[in-house]
Amino acid sequence: MKLIRWGSAGKEKTGVIINDKRYDTSAFGEDYNEIFFESDGLSRLEKFVADNEGKLSPVAEGERWGSPIGRPSKLICIGLNYADHAKETGATPPAEPVIFMKATSAIIGPFDDVVIPKGAQKVDWEVELAVVIGKKASYVEEADALNYVAGYTLHNDVSEREFQLERGGTWDKGKGCDTFAPIGPFMATAEEIADSGNLKLWLSVNGKMMQNGSTSNFIFDVPFVIAYVSQFMTLLPGDVITTGTPAGVAMGFKPPIYLQPGDVMELGIDGLGTSKQTVKAY
Amino acid sequence: MKLIRWGSAGKEKTGVIINDKRYDTSAFGEDYNEIFFESDGLSRLEKFVADNEGKLSPVAEGERWGSPIGRPSKLICIGLNYADHAKETGATPPAEPVIFMKATSAIIGPFDDVVIPKGAQKVDWEVELAVVIGKKASYVEEADALNYVAGYTLHNDVSEREFQLERGGTWDKGKGCDTFAPIGPFMATAEEIADSGNLKLWLSVNGKMMQNGSTSNFIFDVPFVIAYVSQFMTLLPGDVITTGTPAGVAMGFKPPIYLQPGDVMELGIDGLGTSKQTVKAY
Repeated sequence: MKLIRWGSAGKEKTGVIINDKRYDTSAFGEDYNEIFFESDGLSRLEKFVADNEGKLSPVAEGERWGSPIGRPSKLICIGLNYADHAKETGATPPAEPVIFMKATSAIIGPFDDVVIPKGAQKVDWEVELAVVIGKKASYVEEADALNYVAGYTLHNDVSEREFQLERGGTWDKGKGCDTFAPIGPFMATAEEIADSGNLKLWLSVNGKMMQNGSTSNFIFDVPFVIAYVSQFMTLLPGDVITTGTPAGVAMGFKPPIYLQPGDVMELGIDGLGTSKQTVKAY
Repeated sequence: MKLIRWGSAGKEKTGVIINDKRYDTSAFGEDYNEIFFESDGLSRLEKFVADNEGKLSPVAEGERWGSPIGRPSKLICIGLNYADHAKETGATPPAEPVIFMKATSAIIGPFDDVVIPKGAQKVDWEVELAVVIGKKASYVEEADALNYVAGYTLHNDVSEREFQLERGGTWDKGKGCDTFAPIGPFMATAEEIADSGNLKLWLSVNGKMMQNGSTSNFIFDVPFVIAYVSQFMTLLPGDVITTGTPAGVAMGFKPPIYLQPGDVMELGIDGLGTSKQTVKAY
C-alpha cells in the first residue's frame, strides 16, 4: 500500500496511490499520525480501501502533495552512515551511529520549495531513505527491529553547513530550518520494500546527477539503526528515522557548490518514487 | 495564572492553581497544547476560570501531577548558558548560544521517577528555567521576543554524560532518554514573572544543595535566546526552550558523583514552585 497526504499545507487530507493514481481516503476519517499507526491503522486502512474498491474519488491532478505522514513526535537522523559520504566531509566513519534531530517544523511536501534561510550561504542536499516507525519501540533487538517498521519514504535532509558546523554546539542548528525536510511523495508500507539494504538512491541538481548511491553501502543497516536508537529513547508510532546520505553533497566538492535560488533538486529511491524541490531565497 | 495538568500519564486532565490549591478545568474542554496557545487559549481559559469562580472542583490530593503543558512539537535546549557551568564542564563559554534538542518522549511529570537507562552509569541533573512559546515565532527581534512567551516553568534537564559526550555524534544521544525531562509543577503565565533574568534556582540531591544559582548569571538572556533560536527554525505555540543550568552538576565534581538508584532530586525556581524526582534503576 502507498499512503499519501494532499491539499494545502497544514490542512492535508489523506489518500492512497493505486496503479500510479492518487485517490482520496478522507472518508476513512483519520490522519496518518501517531494514533493511526498505534491503533493498527494500516490494517484498518487496507480494509477500508478494499471495501471501497472502485468507489474512491481520484485526487485532482493539480492538488499539492503533502508529506505522506502527519507530523511525527521525532525526526531522528543518522549522520555519516555511508563510508563514501563520511570521507567526502572529512569525517572519520563513526564506530557507532551518529544521532541528531531535525525540528519537525521543517517538514514540507515533496514538491514544495526549499527556502534559503536569512543570511545563509551554504545550503546543501542529502537524499535519504527514511523509515516510519509503526509501534512503540524501546530496547528493541536487532533481529526483531523490522517488526517495528510501518513503512519507508524518501527524504531530502537539507542542511545549512555553516549553521551545522561553524556556529557552535550541535548539528541541530543547521538541520531544522523551515522547509529543510521534504518528505514523500508517498510512504510505502513495509512489505513493498523487500530489502531496505539494497536500494539505489540518487539526487540531481538542475538535471546533473550529484548523488548516485545504494543503501548496500550503509555502515549501519536499518535493523541495526532502529535497535540502536531505541536504546537511547522510545520511538513512538509515526516517528521517522532518516538513515544518512551517500557521497555527492555540495560540501564535498572543492570548492563546494552550495544551492542558489532557482536551483532545482530532483531525487529518488528504488520503489519510493521521486520528489522535486525548487530553491527560493527567503 | 498557574496552569497544571494532572491524572494518569498520557491521559492528563487540565487544571489551574488558585491560592495554592489545584482545581479541575476539564470542563474547559481543551488540552494545553499547540492549538490552545495558538488560538488565544490563555485569555479564554482566564475568562472560563473567572466565569466559574467558586465552582471549580478541587483536584484530589493524591492525584498525580503531569507536565503542565501537552507534548510540544519541540523541546529545544540551550547549552552552557551560565559561565560557571561552562567552566565546571571544561568547556569554553560559547560565543553564541549552543542549541540541542531533547526528544519530547522524555517528558514526565514533576514528581515522577527518573529512570536510569539500561547500561547507563553517568546520569546527571540540571535545574533549568524553561520558556513556553505562545505564538509562532520566526526571525523575531530581541526587543519583541518577550511578546512570544506564554509562560515559564521548571525543568530538570536530566542527562547521561557518557551517551552525551563519549558515544559519538551530537549531545542529543544523552539528553532524550525516557523520563529525562521532568517539567512542572505548573506553568506560570508570563505576567507572573516580572524579570526572567533575576530568578534564583537550585537543586538538591538527598537533601544536599548541589546547584544554587541565579538567572542573573545567564550568558544569553531569555529575549536573546528566543530571537536567536527563531533565526534557525520556527518556534510553534507550546514549544519549550530550556535555558541552561548553573554550576553544580554531578560531572563537575572530582571525581563526578552521578545519580544512583534511590537518590532523590529536589529543585525549584523563584515563582515557579518545586519538583522532586526519585531515581530508579531500569
